[in-house]
Amino acid sequence: MYIKGNTFIVTGGGSGLGLSTAQELLKLEANVIDLKNTEESFYKGREKNFLFIQADITSEKEITKAIQQVIEKFGKNIRGVINCGGIGGVGKTVGSNGMPLDLDLFKFVVNVNLIGTFNVCRLVAAQMVKQKPLEEGERGVIINVSSIAYQDGQMGQVSYSASKGGIASMTLPMTRDLSKFGIRVVTVAPGPFETPMISHLNERSKQKILNQTEFPARPGKSDGEFNKLVIHLIENTYMNGEIIRIDGGIRLGKL
Amino acid sequence: MYIKGNTFIVTGGGSGLGLSTAQELLKLEANVIDLKNTEESFYKGREKNFLFIQADITSEKEITKAIQQVIEKFGKNIRGVINCGGIGGVGKTVGSNGMPLDLDLFKFVVNVNLIGTFNVCRLVAAQMVKQKPLEEGERGVIINVSSIAYQDGQMGQVSYSASKGGIASMTLPMTRDLSKFGIRVVTVAPGPFETPMISHLNERSKQKILNQTEFPARPGKSDGEFNKLVIHLIENTYMNGEIIRIDGGIRLGKL
Amino acid sequence: MYIKGNTFIVTGGGSGLGLSTAQELLKLEANVIDLKNTEESFYKGREKNFLFIQADITSEKEITKAIQQVIEKFGKNIRGVINCGGIGGVGKTVGSNGMPLDLDLFKFVVNVNLIGTFNVCRLVAAQMVKQKPLEEGERGVIINVSSIAYQDGQMGQVSYSASKGGIASMTLPMTRDLSKFGIRVVTVAPGPFETPMISHLNERSKQKILNQTEFPARPGKSDGEFNKLVIHLIENTYMNGEIIRIDGGIRLGKL
Amino acid sequence: MYIKGNTFIVTGGGSGLGLSTAQELLKLEANVIDLKNTEESFYKGREKNFLFIQADITSEKEITKAIQQVIEKFGKNIRGVINCGGIGGVGKTVGSNGMPLDLDLFKFVVNVNLIGTFNVCRLVAAQMVKQKPLEEGERGVIINVSSIAYQDGQMGQVSYSASKGGIASMTLPMTRDLSKFGIRVVTVAPGPFETPMISHLNERSKQKILNQTEFPARPGKSDGEFNKLVIHLIENTYMNGEIIRIDGGIRLGKL
Ligand SMILES: NC(=O)c1ccc[n+]([C@@H]2O[C@H](COP(=O)([O-])OP(=O)(O)OC[C@H]3O[C@@H](n4cnc5c(N)ncnc54)[C@H](O)[C@@H]3O)[C@@H](O)[C@H]2O)c1
Ligand SMILES: NC(=O)c1ccc[n+]([C@@H]2O[C@H](COP(=O)([O-])OP(=O)(O)OC[C@H]3O[C@@H](n4cnc5c(N)ncnc54)[C@H](O)[C@@H]3O)[C@@H](O)[C@H]2O)c1
Ligand SMILES: NC(=O)c1ccc[n+]([C@@H]2O[C@H](COP(=O)([O-])OP(=O)(O)OC[C@H]3O[C@@H](n4cnc5c(N)ncnc54)[C@H](O)[C@@H]3O)[C@@H](O)[C@H]2O)c1
Ligand SMILES: NC(=O)c1ccc[n+]([C@@H]2O[C@H](COP(=O)([O-])OP(=O)(O)OC[C@H]3O[C@@H](n4cnc5c(N)ncnc54)[C@H](O)[C@@H]3O)[C@@H](O)[C@H]2O)c1
Repeated sequence: MYIKGNTFIVTGGGSGLGLSTAQELLKLEANVIDLKNTEESFYKGREKNFLFIQADITSEKEITKAIQQVIEKFGKNIRGVINCGGIGGVGKTVGSNGMPLDLDLFKFVVNVNLIGTFNVCRLVAAQMVKQKPLEEGERGVIINVSSIAYQDGQMGQVSYSASKGGIASMTLPMTRDLSKFGIRVVTVAPGPFETPMISHLNERSKQKILNQTEFPARPGKSDGEFNKLVIHLIENTYMNGEIIRIDGGIRLGKL
Repeated sequence: MYIKGNTFIVTGGGSGLGLSTAQELLKLEANVIDLKNTEESFYKGREKNFLFIQADITSEKEITKAIQQVIEKFGKNIRGVINCGGIGGVGKTVGSNGMPLDLDLFKFVVNVNLIGTFNVCRLVAAQMVKQKPLEEGERGVIINVSSIAYQDGQMGQVSYSASKGGIASMTLPMTRDLSKFGIRVVTVAPGPFETPMISHLNERSKQKILNQTEFPARPGKSDGEFNKLVIHLIENTYMNGEIIRIDGGIRLGKL
Repeated sequence: MYIKGNTFIVTGGGSGLGLSTAQELLKLEANVIDLKNTEESFYKGREKNFLFIQADITSEKEITKAIQQVIEKFGKNIRGVINCGGIGGVGKTVGSNGMPLDLDLFKFVVNVNLIGTFNVCRLVAAQMVKQKPLEEGERGVIINVSSIAYQDGQMGQVSYSASKGGIASMTLPMTRDLSKFGIRVVTVAPGPFETPMISHLNERSKQKILNQTEFPARPGKSDGEFNKLVIHLIENTYMNGEIIRIDGGIRLGKL
Repeated sequence: MYIKGNTFIVTGGGSGLGLSTAQELLKLEANVIDLKNTEESFYKGREKNFLFIQADITSEKEITKAIQQVIEKFGKNIRGVINCGGIGGVGKTVGSNGMPLDLDLFKFVVNVNLIGTFNVCRLVAAQMVKQKPLEEGERGVIINVSSIAYQDGQMGQVSYSASKGGIASMTLPMTRDLSKFGIRVVTVAPGPFETPMISHLNERSKQKILNQTEFPARPGKSDGEFNKLVIHLIENTYMNGEIIRIDGGIRLGKL
């Protein structure tokens, strides 16, 4: 799919992986929507091709309304959504004090990462279905963001891994649901990237993870690595139904 | 781990895979608890080693209470939980009518299968932690039930696959959380088994699936195949952190 | 499949994983053949149900002849083969001295582990095809031994991982080739087990690996863990086409 | 890694996936070497940035000599190798006539695809090690070509799947071997692409495969899809140790 002139929604587009992705799409002359739950916007002066919408990905109402706003501004031309909106969440199944993990924490992480991602997918896809197909009948592309934690989940990551495993496993059935409409679905599973999310980790945990890197021996770059992969996945029509790790060769054993 | 004389909770133990598992555990002279959300019980006359508790796996309160009841009857000796409680749930991301999947369906399936399973895991594990270790320091074993749909999700299975992918991906971090307490975690991912769940499928869907079987060309047997695998996984101390398909060689392509 | 009275070939049955498997099969009153390339035999006094054959798994001639010997002694009743015959092989793609790995080392490891395993499979399967089917049309079962190195290959394991990845990936097509004859194929991927193979490792490497174990914090037991899994896989007719890790929860990151 | 001005070897660069890759690299102003075992060359008039070398990837001598020729023409500047050289190979473990697969066929496929690929990797990597590092210490990138048959191997693909599984599984240990030299390793696992290799399939087999495609419902394009992915993988420094399917969402069930 060509990027120029088309409209792409980036959830969590105001920071980290989403921000770099949104910026790269803007460079390539797409219309870009940053859709997130907090207020400030990083795109001052971009008003022509850019729209910031405050909306919670878990909310049917807010996302439905957001899609309408997008169409009002850019027309019936939503061709992609990149689901970078998400949260971390640390806690062991049973803590050192013998207490079980707070169920609400688990629910919260699954709700935002898995249910929120699915909510955006289904609503954006239903809009894409109504739009005219492009070349070869392609109508749109969905890029979801899982994590290497779907395969290499660490101690304390049970909630996060569960949510990211859900995202990974829905890739194929969603592909199968949406193929007849010409909508592709690809999931990216990043290793450690230097973003606000990872900078919340304490130094020791971060160092332990970085000790496991191969080449290059550093976290990934949102700008130049993550976002370039996303651009490639949007452009390459034969990438469909895949789950792709981008992790500099890291495999997290016991830390 | 030895089975005889130990106490095992089977969620969904009143039908299908759970029923066969509970029966096999009874044969091996374990204490068995069937924990499910409906009323009737299949274990008349088994009162000595058997307990039926009506409880919803998604409820903190009901599962906490259930664990207390188990301990009152059988002592502080809960050594295993087999999470067979779960539900199906069919619906495409975007239906033929162009409508997005009902978000509540997705939430419901994820809530029962993923959050419910995790809820039982964390509460049972916290109880196991308090109990005296057995040989080699082993305190217990958790067997979760995913599905081949975590890898081979079909059209219409996006909710189910998401929930089962969450279960699969939490296997490793849960193993890592619980190892120091001597608790193992293994996930079984069954292919088609002849149970109430699969008998809800219409004939055409069922036939399409069975056309994909290799040898033997039939659904799996709850009694003799699924339950024997579970018994093996309880007994074999080196099985930990694994995800195991049992599917007669089926890989579900596009049906 | 029932074990008692049936005939099973165990390659590499004279040591390590193969030895324990052969011994367990003998306990269960099977006829057992230890097929290996070295001379001494551990089964003195077992002559009734046991046969030792010196044969190289990579040799068409020697394995063909071995199968004939088996049939002469036990009749047309070969129901299983467990391919434990294999070798290690350490060396980096490019060594610290800048030299490329000796191609002959790579070839040797691939030849024994992958080609040797396949050679035995195809010849034994061709014999099974000629035999009368058992219950449900089952004619036999092939258990191949890969390694967790097919997924977690370490520095220096490129040859070994290549050979074990070949074994893992041929599981499914071999299952599909042999299903119509009622022959199942399952691959076991062991983590570290205390056998002659692993005792060749230096203490430091061994310790690094064992530091990565979860519960139990020790190598696996050939007798009681590996061999019991094999017995289960022989008996459980719905296990077909699977690749099963048995590793105590280990995932080998960067050591 | 930047492409312009650097030197890349493409094995099998004279047809199919390799040809498109070589052509794209030439467009991006790289020096390109087509290294294959047959004679004709498709690059007439490209003499400045292009070199054709007839060499068998399985031969230590021929590849060693080829690397010397490359250096003589383009200098010590080999920055990448894309291993497209490979062959098909069809045959069941046991044929319909009851005969086992010819061992030489299995050996031949494994020898070219797996051992040949490794041979080129080790020799090219040893050359890269001697060269000056680029930005961030990067010295080179190896792109190997597996196939979706490493996971979805069909009836009749046991040899091919074994060879491609070997390639997939050596990705990680080779990454770990070469990281300290700043050399990355990535494996691409293509689904069906319209190349000479696939055009050898009979119409019925081809149709069966294409019936399994999702969107787009056609084979992949060497030019525009496969080669663009390769370019991306060369350029994206954080892609290391990955195995990437490019298959339009196909998952091959039982055909
Ligand atoms: N950074 C890493 O190392 C890493 C690794 C693997 C996966 N990921 C994943 O990548 C994604 C992006 O992460 P990041 O590192 O850029 O983190 P980030 O915290 O910078 O970005 C997450 C964004 O999601 C938004 N968000 C959170 N909840 C939301 C909600 N309910 N509704 C709308 N927006 C919401 C936040 O406002 C924020 O902009 C996440 O899904 C994360 O799990 C990150
Ligand atoms: N049958 C198959 O082919 C198949 C295949 C793959 C996976 N599975 C999985 O195996 C598990 C068992 O399935 P089954 O085929 O035996 O189906 P089943 O419907 O016979 O059993 C499911 C059981 O779960 C119980 N349950 C459902 N919701 C519950 C709740 N909220 N609280 C407590 N109990 C609850 C039900 O009462 C029932 O006893 C399920 O998780 C299912 O997804 C089944
Ligand atoms: N021990 C472990 O930790 C471990 C881990 C993963 C996988 N494995 C695999 O398990 C299998 C058994 O290993 P083990 O640990 O018991 O080692 P082992 O060295 O004790 O056994 C290997 C056996 O294979 C036989 N053998 C080797 N080459 C042969 C040939 N050409 N023809 C016939 N027989 C031959 C040897 O005689 C020996 O009996 C091997 O394939 C090994 O790669 C072992
Ligand atoms: N085309 C597909 O659908 C497809 C799918 C999956 C994987 N692949 C893989 O992609 C790679 C390229 O395949 P293709 O479709 O372009 O096929 P192709 O037959 O057009 O190209 C293969 C090339 O390899 C060369 N080659 C073969 N043996 C060689 C040897 N010993 N030494 C040097 N060169 C040798 C041939 O000369 C030819 O140029 C192969 O490894 C193939 O297995 C192809």
